[in-house]
Amino acid sequence: MSAADAKQAKRQRFESVFSKIVEELLGYLKSQSMPEEAIEWFKKNLEYNTPGGKLNRGLSVVDTVEILLCTNESNEKVRELTDDEYTQAAILGWCVELLQAYFLVADDIMDASITRRGHPCWYRVEGIGNIAINDAFMLEAAIYFMLKTHFKSQPYYGHLLELFHDVTFQTELGQLIDLITAPEDTVDLNKFSLKKHHLIVVYKTAFYSFYLPVALAMRMCGVSDEDAYKKAEEILIPLGEYFQVQDDYLDCYGAPEVIGKIGTDILDNKCSWNINVALAHATPEQRQVLDENYGRKDAQCEQKVKDVFNAENIDLKGKFADYERESYDRIHGLINAMPESSGLKRQVFVAFFEKVYKRSK
Amino acid sequence: MSAADAKQAKRQRFESVFSKIVEELLGYLKSQSMPEEAIEWFKKNLEYNTPGGKLNRGLSVVDTVEILLCTNESNEKVRELTDDEYTQAAILGWCVELLQAYFLVADDIMDASITRRGHPCWYRVEGIGNIAINDAFMLEAAIYFMLKTHFKSQPYYGHLLELFHDVTFQTELGQLIDLITAPEDTVDLNKFSLKKHHLIVVYKTAFYSFYLPVALAMRMCGVSDEDAYKKAEEILIPLGEYFQVQDDYLDCYGAPEVIGKIGTDILDNKCSWNINVALAHATPEQRQVLDENYGRKDAQCEQKVKDVFNAENIDLKGKFADYERESYDRIHGLINAMPESSGLKRQVFVAFFEKVYKRSK
Repeated sequence: MSAADAKQAKRQRFESVFSKIVEELLGYLKSQSMPEEAIEWFKKNLEYNTPGGKLNRGLSVVDTVEILLCTNESNEKVRELTDDEYTQAAILGWCVELLQAYFLVADDIMDASITRRGHPCWYRVEGIGNIAINDAFMLEAAIYFMLKTHFKSQPYYGHLLELFHDVTFQTELGQLIDLITAPEDTVDLNKFSLKKHHLIVVYKTAFYSFYLPVALAMRMCGVSDEDAYKKAEEILIPLGEYFQVQDDYLDCYGAPEVIGKIGTDILDNKCSWNINVALAHATPEQRQVLDENYGRKDAQCEQKVKDVFNAENIDLKGKFADYERESYDRIHGLINAMPESSGLKRQVFVAFFEKVYKRSK
Repeated sequence: MSAADAKQAKRQRFESVFSKIVEELLGYLKSQSMPEEAIEWFKKNLEYNTPGGKLNRGLSVVDTVEILLCTNESNEKVRELTDDEYTQAAILGWCVELLQAYFLVADDIMDASITRRGHPCWYRVEGIGNIAINDAFMLEAAIYFMLKTHFKSQPYYGHLLELFHDVTFQTELGQLIDLITAPEDTVDLNKFSLKKHHLIVVYKTAFYSFYLPVALAMRMCGVSDEDAYKKAEEILIPLGEYFQVQDDYLDCYGAPEVIGKIGTDILDNKCSWNINVALAHATPEQRQVLDENYGRKDAQCEQKVKDVFNAENIDLKGKFADYERESYDRIHGLINAMPESSGLKRQVFVAFFEKVYKRSK
């Protein structure tokens, strides 16, 4: 089997668990005598909003469980996950994807976005509108229903709930800072700073996308040393931040045919890494250009901002190359310094890092 | 102290606990180095949306704990709650109020409502808009933060979480049925039925307003017999349904100066008890009048619907009097049939029922 076929098979196996999840959730609605239209509606909500992305977050729960349970000290695979282990890990993975779906359905309304993953945003689908808000709530409720159904008797059940609660709150805090720092309609670059960017990225993205999947997998594998979770967080949060900085950079400098979208961060007044680096190095004249042109829905304004980004004294491409090198060293340092006690393995982080480092999309 | 003064003092003591809750939540944000604007924003969100209602749901947690812990078999008060017991009960009460705030902030956006509790709906406050969606999420997150902070070491902690998760999902299901049965812009009375009304009322209101406060109090008081929860639900869900039918009835027949608002259920195409009773008894001619006039934003249409409600063969006032009598007997029968074993007391339900029965507002 080629690497691409293997990847595809892996994805299909993971997706087959989602079908079971939908069945179980709809089974609950049926058991409560819900009307047929409500059952149909919830089904469409789940299927439209949950799969369809890259599934990186969900799959990394499965990957982490596999590394923790099935490899020896030399990183050799010594067994396969049992079917039960696979299903449990995949359900946790889908719970992360449900959490993301919950956030994205709501974020799209708040950002007045048009499309998501190549389709109209859920709230823009005919007949949905603001009912999408309640639909987002229901995607979140599905998480706790699945956890109760499949993990209630496990000693780590309480830890799973706590992880989802904590990370949900953190993500909402990140979203709040982002919304009040960079409202789409009022540009005020004084509100921006690299410190704000750091906070937004860590809270809005890194906790749920990087720490949560690994911490869930660790709980499932019986890692109970609290220090191991702290250590994991200390690596995964910087890794998540690095990932988001890449994302910000690619929005402006990635090839649209490779990243699969045309970046709009400059037009949308986003508090991205690019603008914050530029602000930190801009001359008063450049700052004025940024103030006058950032966040305007106008291609000429966008070009003027890009010209500042590319000016010799700012040189975003160079700054990003430096950042990437520095991050590589720093994160590898963190991984190598991590003691492999208490059931945690360096390979978990190496695997994650390899997926992320020097990606072009 | 007069009864009114006592009620006022009770409310003030309960409200003083909310100030502590806000402090604790903001303390968490500070500990996470959140920017000052985000802390201010969350404070305003909590204070604008959580208190300000009748607080019946929150106070009934405290009342129930008091009955369970402080009265003897003859319903005599034998002691006061300790300060710690009071605070714990009040925190659970405020968690119910936070849950309600979460729903109401979102419902107001979905219903395009204008005012709530005599003030503009949160999403209509200057500068808020759709950020209110994330604010609603944060009100929910506050529940789990408070539960973790104050109940994590309790043996019943897991049960508290499960209650909130289950009831949240049920309420969202109720909201979904309501939204797709009675969209404000498309009137289709074929979608209505007393069975749909029952489902909407039970799921959207009764679970969180009636069952949840009592079940939380029972958990806090150490009631562990699962059968006691089933019994409580079997009384509280009909009680909640009765309460909502009253609410629907008063929307049309209550005196505006007493209920504190002008009813708009007919104009808003609400799937209320009134219209469903009318539909069940209407002649084909009356049905046509209802089809043509229900849910139109027009006072003349509203009057024509009211005339059908008052027609001799429908006689909503009479039907409601029958319903009220029948409910009284039925619910009292349920309460009297309940065995007072496993730490549950009939007085819990009697107290609830007395607050609700034959209210005029």
